[in-house]
Amino acid sequence: MGTLLFTLLREDSSSKARLGTIETKNGTIETPIFMPVGTRGAVKTLVNQQLYDINAQIILGNTYHLMLKPGMSIIEKAGGLHRFMNWERPILTDSGGFQVFSLSGLNSISDKGVNFQSHIDGSRHFLGPNESMAIQKILGSDIVMAFDECSPYPCKREDLEKGLERTLKWAATSREYELQSHQSLFGIVQGGIHEDLRAQSARALAAINFEGYAIGGLSVGEPAEEMYKVIEYTEPFLPKNKPRYLMGVGTPRNLIEAVMRGIDMFDCVMPTRNARNGTAFTTQGKINIKAGRYAEDFSPLDSGLDCYTSSFSKAYIRHLLNVDEITGLTLVTIQNLAFYLDLMKKIRHSIQEGTLQELYCRICEVYPE
Amino acid sequence: MGTLLFTLLREDSSSKARLGTIETKNGTIETPIFMPVGTRGAVKTLVNQQLYDINAQIILGNTYHLMLKPGMSIIEKAGGLHRFMNWERPILTDSGGFQVFSLSGLNSISDKGVNFQSHIDGSRHFLGPNESMAIQKILGSDIVMAFDECSPYPCKREDLEKGLERTLKWAATSREYELQSHQSLFGIVQGGIHEDLRAQSARALAAINFEGYAIGGLSVGEPAEEMYKVIEYTEPFLPKNKPRYLMGVGTPRNLIEAVMRGIDMFDCVMPTRNARNGTAFTTQGKINIKAGRYAEDFSPLDSGLDCYTSSFSKAYIRHLLNVDEITGLTLVTIQNLAFYLDLMKKIRHSIQEGTLQELYCRICEVYPE
Repeated sequence: MGTLLFTLLREDSSSKARLGTIETKNGTIETPIFMPVGTRGAVKTLVNQQLYDINAQIILGNTYHLMLKPGMSIIEKAGGLHRFMNWERPILTDSGGFQVFSLSGLNSISDKGVNFQSHIDGSRHFLGPNESMAIQKILGSDIVMAFDECSPYPCKREDLEKGLERTLKWAATSREYELQSHQSLFGIVQGGIHEDLRAQSARALAAINFEGYAIGGLSVGEPAEEMYKVIEYTEPFLPKNKPRYLMGVGTPRNLIEAVMRGIDMFDCVMPTRNARNGTAFTTQGKINIKAGRYAEDFSPLDSGLDCYTSSFSKAYIRHLLNVDEITGLTLVTIQNLAFYLDLMKKIRHSIQEGTLQELYCRICEVYPE
Repeated sequence: MGTLLFTLLREDSSSKARLGTIETKNGTIETPIFMPVGTRGAVKTLVNQQLYDINAQIILGNTYHLMLKPGMSIIEKAGGLHRFMNWERPILTDSGGFQVFSLSGLNSISDKGVNFQSHIDGSRHFLGPNESMAIQKILGSDIVMAFDECSPYPCKREDLEKGLERTLKWAATSREYELQSHQSLFGIVQGGIHEDLRAQSARALAAINFEGYAIGGLSVGEPAEEMYKVIEYTEPFLPKNKPRYLMGVGTPRNLIEAVMRGIDMFDCVMPTRNARNGTAFTTQGKINIKAGRYAEDFSPLDSGLDCYTSSFSKAYIRHLLNVDEITGLTLVTIQNLAFYLDLMKKIRHSIQEGTLQELYCRICEVYPE
């Protein structure tokens, strides 16, 4: 049943925020935690050392991308994803479900799984709960996600119900699959924005008994308030003694809102993807570093944050991005991930100290959305 | 007259190779040395720390590129190129001559300098010896290059003579220009592949008295043997007590051949540019890491070299390049520059130990060209 050990260290008195640790074979994670996304075996533009330097405790790998390239045969021969990419800390892998439904050419779906075409070369593949577990077993991730059906937003209730039924079947199939002994399995709550469906999904998953529970199907276009509501009415059905993971979320504001509603884990491409568009997350707020106003601004990108990028000026980073120097992308990516990881550290510290409300007010000022 | 101090530590008995040091305000350089190219204020794909980690002692910046973007006003306000890019070791800047003649839209050339159009946006600019010195003074590089005319290869003798005459005038003008007190100035020998013209150029430059001397106009398409000959008949006219710099060269074989003909300094985009094409320089030879044969090769990219990239397998790096992950470009760039810098270290060690011929034989085996 997995070797993950979740310890709840403290519950916030002013909110549902929780402070905890997750122990895995490859190291301990402090929660609430943000997981940088390393889709294809690398966090874009960075080398591992740069992730260690900003105290990344766990990263995410994508089943869908890795099964297509380099393919499982190569990762199996390498001895798993940790050894393939030489990453020495925990890894969480997703199930491939989200990408199969959002990125690939979807051909047909049955109770066994999904026939789809690769977005790279159109080649045909099949992914169901057994296939997803087999792949994640080879990847050797510390945390494995059950295979789920991701419904779009908005979505008709009857379609959601149908998807939910399948997701529950697939969750049971995933649970039955024998993973590596060090691997833990998380179930994924679906149900769109319907309170009863979310409750039904969460209850059914809790009955199966997973090492952790994720809330999926959010951050797909619904208003933030809807997302917060979904977390609120799902959370009571999630076992307190297991970590809760909100998938694919979000902005700094989203993170603290979700933490205060009882979420422990997050992943999102926002800090890395936006870095490559020239958006820097700083302790002063989000800035477009390519803007003309920074051309002669020789102050550090973020004087409120101590990371490698801090020693470089806005003007220098702007110049690098404006002449398409990769070094600029690397520097902003370091900044953005360092900011996200530092934000989570501040959140953990505030839960410990009982000052989360003050932190919440400060974050809302700088990141109103 | 510049603060550069060149100390000749040892002359090889079996060749014209020299071991030395160049002391500058920003640090000491061991010669023979290779200088990574940081065209637009960054060595492509790397951050400074990664250059320090592989013991890069000096980097090169390009006047032509920097004058266009970000422009001198910004670098002047930043306090020079060192502070702009936060690089704490020596910098050499070229004069802009080579790019003006090879890269830009050339409009007209006179004894004052060159009218050209930016390769970026077609904007019109003028660069002559005074302009080049003014720019390099602002850049604040430790080693400044005199402004020269770079003739193409092949080139008619009468055109070469005309260019040479101008280069000498421009060298004298450059010498008269008052740079910052910590800056040293190198003259550039031209003259194509003509022995008498090279001799004439070198003699005239030596008479002007520079802190160092470069051989320019090579590695522009001529056979390697021609290049070696040019070095051989130019070298006797270069003052022994000053560093000699072979511009834009070259392959590992080229480097040791030139060292054995009396050259102390090199720069070349080959290790960085080829990295981005998937070519890795290793102690076992040059390999195309994207090739199918490396798909399941889990051995380190170069087991004979200790650098950050050494901990990653060929299969992993191949995967990253094949899915266009920037991390892969960074890893191969580190490898290639680490290899070049290690090669120069081995060359220096061999000169010290009197074993340069053995090293030469080993390099020729692995890098025949």
